[in-house]
Parts: sequence; C-alpha cells; structure tokens
Amino acid sequence: MAEIRVFAPATIANIAIGFDILGLALEQPGDEIIARKTDKQSGLTIRKIYNDNNRLPIDPLKNTATVAGQAVLDALGESSMGIEFEIHKKMPIGSGIGSSAASAAAGAFAVNELLGSPFSKKELLPFAVKGEQSADGAFHADNVAPSLLGGIVLVKNDEKLFHIQLPIPENLYVSLICPSIEILTKNAREIIRPNVPLNKFIKQSFNLAGFISSLFLSDYELMKKCLVDHIIEPQRAYLIPHFKDIQETALKNNAIGCSISGAGPSIFAISNSKKNAETITDSMSKILSDAKIPSISLISKVNKEGVLKLSS
Amino acid sequence: MAEIRVFAPATIANIAIGFDILGLALEQPGDEIIARKTDKQSGLTIRKIYNDNNRLPIDPLKNTATVAGQAVLDALGESSMGIEFEIHKKMPIGSGIGSSAASAAAGAFAVNELLGSPFSKKELLPFAVKGEQSADGAFHADNVAPSLLGGIVLVKNDEKLFHIQLPIPENLYVSLICPSIEILTKNAREIIRPNVPLNKFIKQSFNLAGFISSLFLSDYELMKKCLVDHIIEPQRAYLIPHFKDIQETALKNNAIGCSISGAGPSIFAISNSKKNAETITDSMSKILSDAKIPSISLISKVNKEGVLKLSS
Repeated sequence: MAEIRVFAPATIANIAIGFDILGLALEQPGDEIIARKTDKQSGLTIRKIYNDNNRLPIDPLKNTATVAGQAVLDALGESSMGIEFEIHKKMPIGSGIGSSAASAAAGAFAVNELLGSPFSKKELLPFAVKGEQSADGAFHADNVAPSLLGGIVLVKNDEKLFHIQLPIPENLYVSLICPSIEILTKNAREIIRPNVPLNKFIKQSFNLAGFISSLFLSDYELMKKCLVDHIIEPQRAYLIPHFKDIQETALKNNAIGCSISGAGPSIFAISNSKKNAETITDSMSKILSDAKIPSISLISKVNKEGVLKLSS
Repeated sequence: MAEIRVFAPATIANIAIGFDILGLALEQPGDEIIARKTDKQSGLTIRKIYNDNNRLPIDPLKNTATVAGQAVLDALGESSMGIEFEIHKKMPIGSGIGSSAASAAAGAFAVNELLGSPFSKKELLPFAVKGEQSADGAFHADNVAPSLLGGIVLVKNDEKLFHIQLPIPENLYVSLICPSIEILTKNAREIIRPNVPLNKFIKQSFNLAGFISSLFLSDYELMKKCLVDHIIEPQRAYLIPHFKDIQETALKNNAIGCSISGAGPSIFAISNSKKNAETITDSMSKILSDAKIPSISLISKVNKEGVLKLSS
C-alpha cells in the first residue's frame, strides 16, 4: 500500500459532567488525511493542508497529525521510511469539537494502516494523545479516544490511558452549533479555578453517576436530571456570546441536556429523536443568526466506529 | 395490628468514591424496633432502649427513630394516636455503619406498618431522612436510603431525594471491621476541607464513573481500578488507628477495594468470593487485635430488601 485516505471524526469532550474524562464521537464532521509513502525524505512531512486558512503549522514537529504519525513510526523503529500527509481540515479549528484530536487520530491511524496495521486502534491511543498534546500541552484523552475508537468513551488521563466504551442509548441525537468565534483550549483551561467547592463536587458526582447509569439503562428521564454541569460550564459560559439563551431554547425544545462542547465555543444538545434534534438545532441557530453571529450547525448520531479508512 | 417488630439494616455510606451520594445495605447487623399502639399518650414515646449503654436520647424529640416515626404520624394527620417504641440497638453507635439512619428507617417503617402501610417504602424516605437529620444536622440520605430500600443506592440530597437502585454484581461480599473507638459523624464532617483540588476532582470523577459502570457490567477488574478515594479518605484516615495497615492487608488478600465506611472508624472491604471475604476479614481483625484494640468484624452480602417486618 503506497497511499491511503483516512477519516477521523469530530468529538464532544466533557459531555457536561465528565470534565477531561468523557467524550463522544460524531458521525460528521471529521478530518481527512491522505498519507503516501515517499522516497523524498525519511520521517513525516506535510505536503499541504487544505481549508485551514493557513492557521495550522506545516512543520511536522508541530502539527498534531504528524507528531502522532511520527510517534507510530518511531515505535515501530521505521526511522528510514518517508511518508507525506495531505491534511484536509473539514471542521472549524479552535471550536471545541476536537479538531486537533481528530487530526492526531487520523495521523496515527494513517501511518499504522500504511505500514500494514501492526497496532490495533486501542494501541494507537498513546500515539494519538502525544499528537494532541503537542497542540495544547495538556494531557487529556477525552477527544482523542472517541475520535480514534468511536462511541462514548470514559478515559483516565494516566500513562496507561485506561478507557472503556459506554453503551449508546438508541435514538440518541446530538445537535451542535459552532459559532464562528474562537476560544483557544489553552485559554479556556486557564480560567478554570484550581479548586471545586465541596458542595458542587457532591452535586456533580451525583450527576455523573446518574448520567453513567442512564447510558446503561437507556433512561432519558434520568439523563435529563443529570446532564447539568455545576462546575465547569458556569466558569466558561461567559466566553460564549448568548450561551444562556441558546441553552434555554434547547431545553425548551425538549433537549435532554445542553452544555459547552469541550472548551467551547461550540454548544451541544442531546435529544432522543431526530425531529427534536432538528427543532433544537434550528432554535439554537436562530439565536446566533438574530445576533448576526455566523455559525455552523449540524445533527449527528454517535459515531460507533471512530477513525476509518476511506480508500487506498 | 397493635404491635409490630421491624428490622432495619446497617449501611455503608460513600463506598469510597460516592461521598454523600452512594450507600449500600448490609444483611447484618441491624436495629430492631418493637412498636405498639398505646392509649397512655398521643404521639411517639420510647419505652426503653436496649443495648445502647444509655448513650441514645430517650426523649422522642431527639431520637432518630421517634423523630422519623412522628414525621409519618404527622403526615397522616394522626395527631391523637399513641405509639411506644422499644428500640433494640444491635450495632455499634458512632461507628460509621449508619446506626442513627437504621433507627430512623426502622422508626418510620414501624409506624407506617402499624397504620396499615399507607406509604410505600420509597415514600417513607423523606420521613426517615428527617429522623437521621436530627442526629447529625447534615442533610444526606446515603445511609437512610439503602437502610430503607436495600441494595446499592445512588441518592441526590435535595428536597425530592431522587434516587435509583444500582445493580448488585453476583458474589459481591463486604468485609467489615468496626474498631471500638468512636468518631462522631459531625466531627468527621468538620475536618473535610471545603474545596476539592481540580486534579483530584478529575481523578475521582473517573473512579466514580468507572465504579458505576463496573456495577452494570459486573466487572470486578474495572471495580478494582476505580474503588479508590482520592478526596475524603486521605483527610479522615488519620482518625482511625492502623487504617493504612488494615487497608494494605485487605488489598493484599484480594480485596477489590477497601476504605472507610461512612465517617468511620469502621472499615469495609469489597471482595468477589466468600472465601476472600473471610480471609480479608481475618487479616483486618488481626491488625487490630495485635494492637490490642477491641473490634467487631463480619462478612455480609448486600441486603436487597432493606427494612422489613419481623413479626406482628
């Protein structure tokens, strides 16, 4: 195999109640990478990045896709192999839907596939995390793990990156709106206070335990009671124009829950039917369009597969 | 029905990773209350408390059993009815296994049964919580809910006391050791710092989410990874002599997890076979007997029924 095209999905990290430990994969959007073997050099290079408005580093030591891919090459001892990437960004950058993580997952996966899949997807996780880390410096796998593996993933941010895939209730839909303003994850992290008040910790613990239970029980009523973030959302909401109005309209339109996707500014809402998901997305979009803030909106089920090969 | 005898089980609150929101019921020990109608007075009185070394209030306005029972009477508008309790304490007081909560659950249940069960067990929860609150002032239902309802219970400490019963993995055994030293819940609460460091909050969130998942999956390996308290146990452990040694010996003897029961000083360990539970209990007891600290120890499965009628 001399050339391969892969897809890695966007993701929603935190899911309101699982800061740094929970994430889910979307069906769309997702980044695509074409990886091909080349004799021109050894190691990874980037031939071109499409659709990034020249905002992403072309330097392979700084781009999450190539850092992740190089980590795979290094682990396999393939120091003489040359691979070039064409990166097709198909999602907004810095929007809180795991753009850098998707590129990292795609980069690790593409190199692995090109070399005959010596690693399983699960085994690629540390390499993809290494790529993701090169973007914001923080070590958290709640975007990378679902982008790579699909599903709703619970992940521990330690060396072993222990993780499990949680059940996906039937008819779970995600409505997503990405306002065209940018928040850097790094900045959104810096504003989080270093301590959590004990009473909020207890309330959030209940919500987390109840949300996990709701996934196993496919119990949307329970999920609705629990999908409320008492800790992170109140600290970040002010960064997103009209957040409260958008959340309110989503909940009025039968959202099970609505909060900030990752570090924002994207906002997600969970619902339990396609019809509700459409109404919710429309109502959220309207608030931004009324305020003359451009945005992208979409509806997606949970992506169960994660990163995948499109063609070779 | 003029007289009834009821049983309410001891409970383990917190279960290491669910401070104030998780608890489980034991098969033994448990408090027993004999309740009988009387013409001597209206309202609740305590005829006698057995086995409390005169440490519990005989004043019906101060004892958790009668406060809970009176709340049931009041809710039913039965202001003229007279009921007297004989309270048989069958567990150590102030030991962290929900002594006051068991009496409260038994008191509410006994009155309800004596009046023909107008309330379901679930509906009795607010009355039992009112009784429990009279003991330590704090509003938390993580002992009362499992004592009343049985099982492993996730409970929200708000007005509605929303709760769900979680699955109980087969072969789950609890080893329990109660050192004969006393810690008042009120004091054990006061030493808890009012803030949780963010990084510990994230680690504990993973453990809680993983533990809840392990119950649904009957996955003891996952449970073992997650049954670790990064927040409360480190703050309370020093109150319990030899805690670290006891925990270490439990884990060495194949405990899935070991931590402080409620506010302590009792220590519980979870295991997945009766044989392991016995070995663990013996090893924990030995540390205290070597140190010449008297203790009670026992093995129990999870009590699925909660409070029950023994005879009438």
